[in-house]
Amino acid sequence: MLRVAVLGAGRIGKIHAANVAGNPKAKLVTVADPYGTAAKELADRLGCEASLDPGAAIERGDVDAVIIGTPTDTHVSLMLHAVRNGKAVLCEKPIDLDITKVDAAVLEVERLNGRVMVAFNRRFDPSARQLRRSIDDGEIGDVRQVIISSRDPGMPPREYVRHSGGIFRDMVIHDFDMARWLLGEEPIEVMATASRLVDPGLAEFDDFDTLMVQMRTASGRQCHINCCREAVYGYDQRMEIFGSTGMLLNENLRPTTVRRWGKAGTEARDPLLNFFLERYAEAYKAEFDQFADALESGSPLPTTPHDGRQALRLADCALESALTGRAVKV
Amino acid sequence: MLRVAVLGAGRIGKIHAANVAGNPKAKLVTVADPYGTAAKELADRLGCEASLDPGAAIERGDVDAVIIGTPTDTHVSLMLHAVRNGKAVLCEKPIDLDITKVDAAVLEVERLNGRVMVAFNRRFDPSARQLRRSIDDGEIGDVRQVIISSRDPGMPPREYVRHSGGIFRDMVIHDFDMARWLLGEEPIEVMATASRLVDPGLAEFDDFDTLMVQMRTASGRQCHINCCREAVYGYDQRMEIFGSTGMLLNENLRPTTVRRWGKAGTEARDPLLNFFLERYAEAYKAEFDQFADALESGSPLPTTPHDGRQALRLADCALESALTGRAVKV
Amino acid sequence: MLRVAVLGAGRIGKIHAANVAGNPKAKLVTVADPYGTAAKELADRLGCEASLDPGAAIERGDVDAVIIGTPTDTHVSLMLHAVRNGKAVLCEKPIDLDITKVDAAVLEVERLNGRVMVAFNRRFDPSARQLRRSIDDGEIGDVRQVIISSRDPGMPPREYVRHSGGIFRDMVIHDFDMARWLLGEEPIEVMATASRLVDPGLAEFDDFDTLMVQMRTASGRQCHINCCREAVYGYDQRMEIFGSTGMLLNENLRPTTVRRWGKAGTEARDPLLNFFLERYAEAYKAEFDQFADALESGSPLPTTPHDGRQALRLADCALESALTGRAVKV
Amino acid sequence: MLRVAVLGAGRIGKIHAANVAGNPKAKLVTVADPYGTAAKELADRLGCEASLDPGAAIERGDVDAVIIGTPTDTHVSLMLHAVRNGKAVLCEKPIDLDITKVDAAVLEVERLNGRVMVAFNRRFDPSARQLRRSIDDGEIGDVRQVIISSRDPGMPPREYVRHSGGIFRDMVIHDFDMARWLLGEEPIEVMATASRLVDPGLAEFDDFDTLMVQMRTASGRQCHINCCREAVYGYDQRMEIFGSTGMLLNENLRPTTVRRWGKAGTEARDPLLNFFLERYAEAYKAEFDQFADALESGSPLPTTPHDGRQALRLADCALESALTGRAVKV
Repeated sequence: MLRVAVLGAGRIGKIHAANVAGNPKAKLVTVADPYGTAAKELADRLGCEASLDPGAAIERGDVDAVIIGTPTDTHVSLMLHAVRNGKAVLCEKPIDLDITKVDAAVLEVERLNGRVMVAFNRRFDPSARQLRRSIDDGEIGDVRQVIISSRDPGMPPREYVRHSGGIFRDMVIHDFDMARWLLGEEPIEVMATASRLVDPGLAEFDDFDTLMVQMRTASGRQCHINCCREAVYGYDQRMEIFGSTGMLLNENLRPTTVRRWGKAGTEARDPLLNFFLERYAEAYKAEFDQFADALESGSPLPTTPHDGRQALRLADCALESALTGRAVKV
Repeated sequence: MLRVAVLGAGRIGKIHAANVAGNPKAKLVTVADPYGTAAKELADRLGCEASLDPGAAIERGDVDAVIIGTPTDTHVSLMLHAVRNGKAVLCEKPIDLDITKVDAAVLEVERLNGRVMVAFNRRFDPSARQLRRSIDDGEIGDVRQVIISSRDPGMPPREYVRHSGGIFRDMVIHDFDMARWLLGEEPIEVMATASRLVDPGLAEFDDFDTLMVQMRTASGRQCHINCCREAVYGYDQRMEIFGSTGMLLNENLRPTTVRRWGKAGTEARDPLLNFFLERYAEAYKAEFDQFADALESGSPLPTTPHDGRQALRLADCALESALTGRAVKV
Repeated sequence: MLRVAVLGAGRIGKIHAANVAGNPKAKLVTVADPYGTAAKELADRLGCEASLDPGAAIERGDVDAVIIGTPTDTHVSLMLHAVRNGKAVLCEKPIDLDITKVDAAVLEVERLNGRVMVAFNRRFDPSARQLRRSIDDGEIGDVRQVIISSRDPGMPPREYVRHSGGIFRDMVIHDFDMARWLLGEEPIEVMATASRLVDPGLAEFDDFDTLMVQMRTASGRQCHINCCREAVYGYDQRMEIFGSTGMLLNENLRPTTVRRWGKAGTEARDPLLNFFLERYAEAYKAEFDQFADALESGSPLPTTPHDGRQALRLADCALESALTGRAVKV
Repeated sequence: MLRVAVLGAGRIGKIHAANVAGNPKAKLVTVADPYGTAAKELADRLGCEASLDPGAAIERGDVDAVIIGTPTDTHVSLMLHAVRNGKAVLCEKPIDLDITKVDAAVLEVERLNGRVMVAFNRRFDPSARQLRRSIDDGEIGDVRQVIISSRDPGMPPREYVRHSGGIFRDMVIHDFDMARWLLGEEPIEVMATASRLVDPGLAEFDDFDTLMVQMRTASGRQCHINCCREAVYGYDQRMEIFGSTGMLLNENLRPTTVRRWGKAGTEARDPLLNFFLERYAEAYKAEFDQFADALESGSPLPTTPHDGRQALRLADCALESALTGRAVKV
């Protein structure tokens, strides 16, 4: 039975805490959040202890693993504190917005033989896993092109954007991780173009809302990513992998399979699931489940700090390309 | 080059005439219709002769085949006149509304070795042909159940209904033909239930607008047909064949493959094609093309007067079942 | 917090017990099954008590509600025992195979003001609920026709069939319940035809494996049901509702949304979910959840013993129709 | 009645000639091809005259319009010869592989007020027209991103590739035209990456087989194109347009709407239509039809030599970007 502390009782902390509580292999020991009553309320609902001190939660003798869902600028210190205390870590992405800090943290985790997994939740989505499995099974031969569409349902609040590190580091980082995972090779060149088509006011933060990224690997595989902060029709998450003997793609998820015909004569389907908490509910469950499984069996964790580092590096290269209009070598 | 006279210049005659004119294997010689200027207008548009006398058109020395698209009560006499003049015939369904008259006509055609094909256009639809071909290729093993949905976009005019012979003989007759064709065995028992849910006024004609038919064959295969004179969402034409090693079904046709997502978040597709002239445009072309091919090669015609007779017989049985509430042996 | 005893630790009992254990509104107190170690094993896994005596489990002071998942012939006595002890009941279908016994039990439950819900799990499937909600919202106007396809992936074991009460009472009973629920009116006439196309040996039990049912209501609404004990392509569960202003249908569920193109050029999708435990996993959860909600709020239970009785009555009529070849008045 | 000469009796000339012959608004006067018996055979089949001299065919007094389907390096001279003889022209793309020559030709056509349409057939595909119409109708608000997937079923013969002008000018030119048409603005910057993943031997021609292009317009709209010379699953032609109030995409076409379930449990659909002659059969018909309509009514031709020039310019920029690894300003 894995004994877990969840650090951070915000939107993502609540998801993790509920999944720990509902997983028969694990026990939710405590929830820690220094801000107000969030930890208390969450702990009461899930029947565990609450704390205002994440550091103390890490140090508890009855805690084997911690899940870090606190603000980004606290990730590195909490992660290293946990590793130094011999605790396994599931850390939300990004590790940090500063690649130098990330590089140092990754090195330190490796030096300490820390057990750290970075929470790239999309890899655990059942359709994404099927895509990866089909590639591994040779269904489509050699991968030639990967195409990722990733659009959020609406602009986040202004204050969120101000501290997010920008769309490349905050939002596209998930897609860079998927790209690496599906390409099966590291991108070596990044070309990006980015616009402010939703909110021209983003110029204040030198940020963008609509972008395309094009990458290639050493062997010539190619990847395209398109993103937008606002899609009025909902959270749009699709991937396509084109290979030498076939092609795979995943459709968006809907809550039901109902098809409707009405007076206009057209056929309609359900609206898309609203946003990542709904769309990736299964993925978050599976993510924690595989974390727990890997710790129990001693097998490698499915994602590593190095994965977190590489995704951030690609985000930095893409931002540089968007700002300079040049292709950037990784 | 097959030289053709089209008898009847109404809605269906126009379709046949245009298909003859556009088929490189055939020549449209004349269009004949005793009513007003319909033949003249159609002939002018397609560059052939016009006539007010279908009988004379049949007798022309430069005509090899006739297509009968006149009112139902003229079908038998024109068909037999053509056969007696040595002409091949493509005759619209039903042959007649009176099974006794149909039986006599079928016998006479057989006695004269006439070349007569009954225009069950739906058998020539590309998707229907693929269903039949997949069955023939053994894709689904032994057929167990056939399910046919057949709904018209809207009620026909009152005067049409008055002379139509009723929904079973006028509309469901197509579905009885499909049922026989897809089952691969003759139905031996028919159970029907019919209602007036669209227009209670149909009671005046002892007719119905909404019905279900259930049939079985000697070996126990089963068939369900559902029909309605009005589907606000368009002309709904679907078939499903369930077999021992698989299942097949065909979706409705749409004019394009465009998918649309809008503010409501739902996904929408094109409206269905409006009605049989649009939905079966390809089928009508292929029907005439196979008629011409069979005549040229001397091979059997794809549908026979016997097929026309059997479909009418099933319609009569279904009507009797709907009126009496009993299963009827064919 | 609803305190629950689960009676029966077989296939369906395991599902219910796990859903109780995972539902934050409920507490799984005990699992009772007189056969061997099943209750013990299940209880150990879910962290509750085990018992060999369902009657004693019902009588426990710390139990508010019981879920009956025992063999069919024990349903009535356990249900009445629970009601007499003031416990709420969620009872698996059918209540009994003998309509006389069912009628007596329904009367007794009503006399005692018992809180009993019959487990028609399919009503709680998200897509089924959406169909019902769309009807209630007037999306398709007046219901005209309901079409239900219901095929199992494979024949059950011979011993199961021997005691099942036959395909109409065992399998189609679910579809009769869906028909009543979706039609919004009681069927007044049933016509059925049934064959042995999968296993002729079923003649030994006077049972069938492939059937069609046709029903109508007093106002003329119609319903078709088709069933087969074996569909090689998987558990096929579809419904279509055709109304005066629109049409609805639900597609089968698949584990992912992946689409695949390979060398044959065709596009393929995931296999269907294997059988009812997988296909209706969400529905079973929602079923218990609504049971618990209704008990807590004191609102009517979503399904009643009367529903169980009516579905069985339709099954009996359909069997009679299949055996006699006549339409049967309900 | 438009009197037409078709120049070139190869694969594309045959399509055009058949469409002219089957169009009631036009008359096919002659087919001209200097090579062997191709013109003779085609003319015999379609019932028109044949010639070995395209120039003479242009000069005929009974010819109003010419369709140029000859080898690319003859396009400009035949086009100008026709314009100087007062004939309307439908010219296959590309106008020429050399942008200087194209620029001169475009200027000369404009100076002479020539009526010249460039054969970008895909604009006339029913689904493409619906996409454009939906954009024009404001269905999706302001266009933000266009995504075009364009994959051929297999490598063309080596000799074809040698003279094709390379993948960007030969194949992607169609997609550049679609991009301009759907974006509604001119791309001002092009980034391309190209590989030899199918046939490394293309290095001999400095050509590629797998590529991605990324473009942006002055207002910040973005476009992605992906292409490959070989997709084992068939001719893959899809487009997606993402806008401020919605999104549109078109699925690939299939010959039927049949869905199949078999023993593997998966659902399968028809293979894709093989290649451009089948996929765009309707589009070629509509292309000529709109050419004839525009000439008859005197309205502007739907595509112009300028469109041909712009698409070639984008192809040149993309090639330069792929070779240099830099973004190229148009």
